[in-house]
Amino acid sequence: MVEQPLAKTNLPLDANRLWADIMALAEMTEPDRPYTRRSFGPLFLKGRDWLAGKFAEAGLAVRIDTAGNLIGRLDGADPSQGVIAVGSHSDTVPSGGRFDGIAGLIAALEVVRALRDAGMRLAHTIEVIDFLAEEPSEYGLSCIGSRGMVGVLDAGMLDLKEPGGEALRDALRRVGGDPDRVAAARRHDVTAFLELHVEQGIVLESQALDVGIVTSIVGIRRIEITFEGAADHAGTTPMALRQDALVAAAGIVMAVRRIADQLAAEERDYFVATVGILAVEPGGSNIVPGRCRLVIDARTTNPALTQRFVEEIERDSAACAAAARVARSPLVTLSDGAPAVFDRTLREALRQGAREFGLRDTDLPSGAGHDAAFMSRICPAAMVFVPCRKGKSHAPEEWADRDQIAAGAAVVLQAVKTLDRSLRHKS
Amino acid sequence: MVEQPLAKTNLPLDANRLWADIMALAEMTEPDRPYTRRSFGPLFLKGRDWLAGKFAEAGLAVRIDTAGNLIGRLDGADPSQGVIAVGSHSDTVPSGGRFDGIAGLIAALEVVRALRDAGMRLAHTIEVIDFLAEEPSEYGLSCIGSRGMVGVLDAGMLDLKEPGGEALRDALRRVGGDPDRVAAARRHDVTAFLELHVEQGIVLESQALDVGIVTSIVGIRRIEITFEGAADHAGTTPMALRQDALVAAAGIVMAVRRIADQLAAEERDYFVATVGILAVEPGGSNIVPGRCRLVIDARTTNPALTQRFVEEIERDSAACAAAARVARSPLVTLSDGAPAVFDRTLREALRQGAREFGLRDTDLPSGAGHDAAFMSRICPAAMVFVPCRKGKSHAPEEWADRDQIAAGAAVVLQAVKTLDRSLRHKS
Repeated sequence: MVEQPLAKTNLPLDANRLWADIMALAEMTEPDRPYTRRSFGPLFLKGRDWLAGKFAEAGLAVRIDTAGNLIGRLDGADPSQGVIAVGSHSDTVPSGGRFDGIAGLIAALEVVRALRDAGMRLAHTIEVIDFLAEEPSEYGLSCIGSRGMVGVLDAGMLDLKEPGGEALRDALRRVGGDPDRVAAARRHDVTAFLELHVEQGIVLESQALDVGIVTSIVGIRRIEITFEGAADHAGTTPMALRQDALVAAAGIVMAVRRIADQLAAEERDYFVATVGILAVEPGGSNIVPGRCRLVIDARTTNPALTQRFVEEIERDSAACAAAARVARSPLVTLSDGAPAVFDRTLREALRQGAREFGLRDTDLPSGAGHDAAFMSRICPAAMVFVPCRKGKSHAPEEWADRDQIAAGAAVVLQAVKTLDRSLRHKS
Repeated sequence: MVEQPLAKTNLPLDANRLWADIMALAEMTEPDRPYTRRSFGPLFLKGRDWLAGKFAEAGLAVRIDTAGNLIGRLDGADPSQGVIAVGSHSDTVPSGGRFDGIAGLIAALEVVRALRDAGMRLAHTIEVIDFLAEEPSEYGLSCIGSRGMVGVLDAGMLDLKEPGGEALRDALRRVGGDPDRVAAARRHDVTAFLELHVEQGIVLESQALDVGIVTSIVGIRRIEITFEGAADHAGTTPMALRQDALVAAAGIVMAVRRIADQLAAEERDYFVATVGILAVEPGGSNIVPGRCRLVIDARTTNPALTQRFVEEIERDSAACAAAARVARSPLVTLSDGAPAVFDRTLREALRQGAREFGLRDTDLPSGAGHDAAFMSRICPAAMVFVPCRKGKSHAPEEWADRDQIAAGAAVVLQAVKTLDRSLRHKS
């Protein structure tokens, strides 16, 4: 048995208020598929209405930028100092957890409430940001809001369509953004960005640590492959005459696993790859699959491994298609993010915050992508991880303890205070 | 180049009326997914309203039996002679064709219209039957109506649910059946059953033949397998710790193909097997698949091959589950139909009809299941196949020629006349 972290008391924020708000937002879920609050859907919009109310209650001026991010703003004493931004996201994956996203978002809100309760006014303006659609959306794109905020949400992305045919451009309008003026969401005034998140791994729990100071985020490449065969009758089409798209796709699922196992076993760098989406058409038990589409998600801290992976998949998928006598589409890169390295000054401010409260911290990389990876392109950024029970995330059993989220939020609060002083320039 | 069959003229029915009605019903399709008219859906019900009108126009008394079959009845001159039934089905697979089912159904209607136009009244009562849900329905069951008509639609089947949660029992009520009195659909008065269908294979076309006299129908076994793993985060779960349900499922897709190839290559008997349904949950690109359900469809004229197939799948699926560190459900037999052998007297009547019109015929087995296979359990039954372009079926490009459907319908008409005399008993 590992030693359990101690509950931290006397933190300069309200752990109960923080916890109650996380639970209240988590309960806004599709009832038959907890915990699901898909971006752009009615529950997502209901959550945002509730968040906007909470932001206003905390004295924040609320707006939605042209990229669809919900932002609460508290002006600083010195407008020339720019903005310290803190935030995360309120959408979930299908059948996700109660903490991924909203733990960090409500922690950001609690940071502002704690400052206000303490009667503190910072020199910097502070913003609490609910980034739009951090999780892969129905439009095939993740981190839509943070892409917009760093100026890389382009027209091609806005033209992406969900299976029902709605374009992202129209969905963005529906949630209060403005696709025709999306460039206006690009920020030039952010001095620092901080994000708290559940670890979604087992490093902190297994070593009985309180917080992780994130050093870098893996780069994520998403690749779509489509096999086109012939949707023939499953009874009357002899085996030798079949062009079965699913047989080719099954071959590539096996290949992704084999190649990823090999690259991961090299142990010098982090590497994982997954086929999480595989759709069979037409999808009747008595029809030979005529079309099969799959999406591969490959992540690493070393882009050279992605290169090797893609070369092998290119070769293997062509071989699988040939063996099944089906056509293979060219590999489509749906997204390709380079690894993000976090800012040393911000990480030191976070570490100093952790030590202030006697918390046990460690440096660690993140295998999951986050909005902070995009934000690091336009400003110094860093992240804090809090422990996640058994490393389970993107699943209903995802769990983080009240006191550990509160401790992590206190670390962010402390870092915000530190940075408000250390990043101040002479106006 | 093979010789093309000649267009047949002077058939004792109205080929244009037959064709126009097939086209009119085919056009009742989901507009963005031609040709789709799923059983129990709104377009299916619209089609049935239209059919009921056509039946009535032809002088038939229209009813729906307790198993949801739409029946048009023309009383014979001698009520003691029983019923000669002719029919097929009006539902389609998703993205199916324009002929599978309705070619035979409208041909059956045309047989009655032709008799009437000729002023003929048979001794036997004649019924035109639109069997409910011949294709695999959303409730996981095919041939629902013909199962009911032969008394094997049991309570367990009526409890099956579609993904939205509706039970078949309730769906049956919605389409005019009566699940509480489904036993009443069991018939004891049918003297003969005939069905025309597109071949869904390439035997007739490749040999320039006009009609196939079907000798037997393959037995179909449908097996469901579910793999249960863990829906972990695709970024933070190291390869070595994954329990990926899709990896196990991909293994079994490959195994089904390999084993079916072997059994088919033995060439003594017909054998095919297909995985046409494979569903991944939760189905996000950044989530390791936690659950994967697939349905295997295996068909043969020799039940011993199915036995060998299932034994190998049992072993291989356990091995795939173990290799991926996931759990495998017991194999669930969704349905298991024995091969059906058609009646010699009816086949001879059909052959005699074909020769009457100078048509080129052959005997052949059917790799596809049909309502006639169930009907053969309660009465002599037989089928006629008409040529199907390039053997394509269960697909939008499915095609059969007007004159060839008309020729097949004329063969059925001739057989009905023959059987009305030869099957007559002394009353």
